[in-house]
Amino acid sequence: MEERAKIRLFVEHPLAPGAAVGLSAEQAHYLRSVMRLGPGVPLLLFNGRDGEWRARLDGLGKGWASCSVEAATRPQVREPDIWLVFAPLKRARIDFVAQKATELGVSALWPIFTRHTSVGRVNDERLRANAIEAAEQCERLTVPDIFEPASLEEALASWPKGRRIFLCDERGGGAPIAEALGTAGQSPGSLAEPAAAMIGPEGGFSSEELDRLRNNPIVTPIGLGPRVLRADTAALAVLACWQALVGDWRSVRAETPARRFQP
Amino acid sequence: MEERAKIRLFVEHPLAPGAAVGLSAEQAHYLRSVMRLGPGVPLLLFNGRDGEWRARLDGLGKGWASCSVEAATRPQVREPDIWLVFAPLKRARIDFVAQKATELGVSALWPIFTRHTSVGRVNDERLRANAIEAAEQCERLTVPDIFEPASLEEALASWPKGRRIFLCDERGGGAPIAEALGTAGQSPGSLAEPAAAMIGPEGGFSSEELDRLRNNPIVTPIGLGPRVLRADTAALAVLACWQALVGDWRSVRAETPARRFQP
Repeated sequence: MEERAKIRLFVEHPLAPGAAVGLSAEQAHYLRSVMRLGPGVPLLLFNGRDGEWRARLDGLGKGWASCSVEAATRPQVREPDIWLVFAPLKRARIDFVAQKATELGVSALWPIFTRHTSVGRVNDERLRANAIEAAEQCERLTVPDIFEPASLEEALASWPKGRRIFLCDERGGGAPIAEALGTAGQSPGSLAEPAAAMIGPEGGFSSEELDRLRNNPIVTPIGLGPRVLRADTAALAVLACWQALVGDWRSVRAETPARRFQP
Repeated sequence: MEERAKIRLFVEHPLAPGAAVGLSAEQAHYLRSVMRLGPGVPLLLFNGRDGEWRARLDGLGKGWASCSVEAATRPQVREPDIWLVFAPLKRARIDFVAQKATELGVSALWPIFTRHTSVGRVNDERLRANAIEAAEQCERLTVPDIFEPASLEEALASWPKGRRIFLCDERGGGAPIAEALGTAGQSPGSLAEPAAAMIGPEGGFSSEELDRLRNNPIVTPIGLGPRVLRADTAALAVLACWQALVGDWRSVRAETPARRFQP
């Protein structure tokens, strides 16, 4: 039986049979000093474009590692396209949102500043590092895009046509989420229309922001029941419901005996 | 306008007009030393049985506080009945699951030991403290029950009749979650049948455990899409989808202008 690669890494490099791929200093450190691996170890690589490939570690040292690509293990497939547009949260919670949203298949993370947003700046690199690590571990073939933080006004001014915004309307009055998503009327097997989940800051949207959003025809306000959720809980709940109802959780996954939860 | 109480506390004491209620030493410490409040401050109290009441702080000192109940603010209502039956996780993750599951309206948390469970013991008190704090903040009228940790065998041997188990089947082959829940066929406004979400340990269920579960007619194996989720992510995803599709997220919540996300 083919030796099963346990380590899965995201690289920017094109992937094709025989390609030599240099890994980053962080990846080299992880393989060498954390996992204590040496040449010959099998790896899985993905770059978000060429599917997943088996590769083999050729050599590594302090700050460098190189491997050669052997054979494709999974083809690149189109993935559901749902953005998470969210007011930035404090450090531990924003890390958490980036990790969980990536597992839940988000296609892009877009931090937006609203009137009551209390966090003043976003560490994009940290956001991206969290997304990459989660993508490596959850067996995604892509890493979500991290968009440049913007104000809510800027985000709406440049908003792409046809991408519906499911707005978590924490003041109530929104349609129940299953109803709002159900009217999207997806047929099984088809890919859902591009969408975005929008979550306000912990202090809520201002009345003016909420009125403007509700009056925008691209926005569907949704409700998440009678309890008051934290912003991070709301974000994950919307993504899970979207995947279940219109995203890629609608298909049966073939049984894979070796499959486990993430370690 | 009536002064709005900002602090909401869970108490065991019966709640009725004029009742004098003593708070716990921890609650007294929180009011006195953390929030720096004094007599006269309005509070909201709930005990899981008598609805929510406005009360007023009468006095407080080191290790004690007492208040008197004034008027009911919300009646007790029946809540959806979904248990989370889960293999215990390491400390930060189990805290997180207890908090988020409470926000998502779980009715009981039941840690179960499976063959590959690596966490050896569960701190029930800590689990309960996390659940109480989350219930206070998310405006629930109940605190989820914390059941005595048990082995998977014990849990199944004493399993209540009619409570369906939605098993997160990480090896694939389960019905897509929306399909599995959709066949529950709830009519809007009716309360869903008692149910449980069951999540294995990070190492997965053993083949024997999985076979036994799949052959149990009370168990519906479900799938959560093509990515490998962490056990904590899977737990929250199932609870969110269950509330959205058959739980209390199916109703429109009346608009409440002062409503915010949790601070």
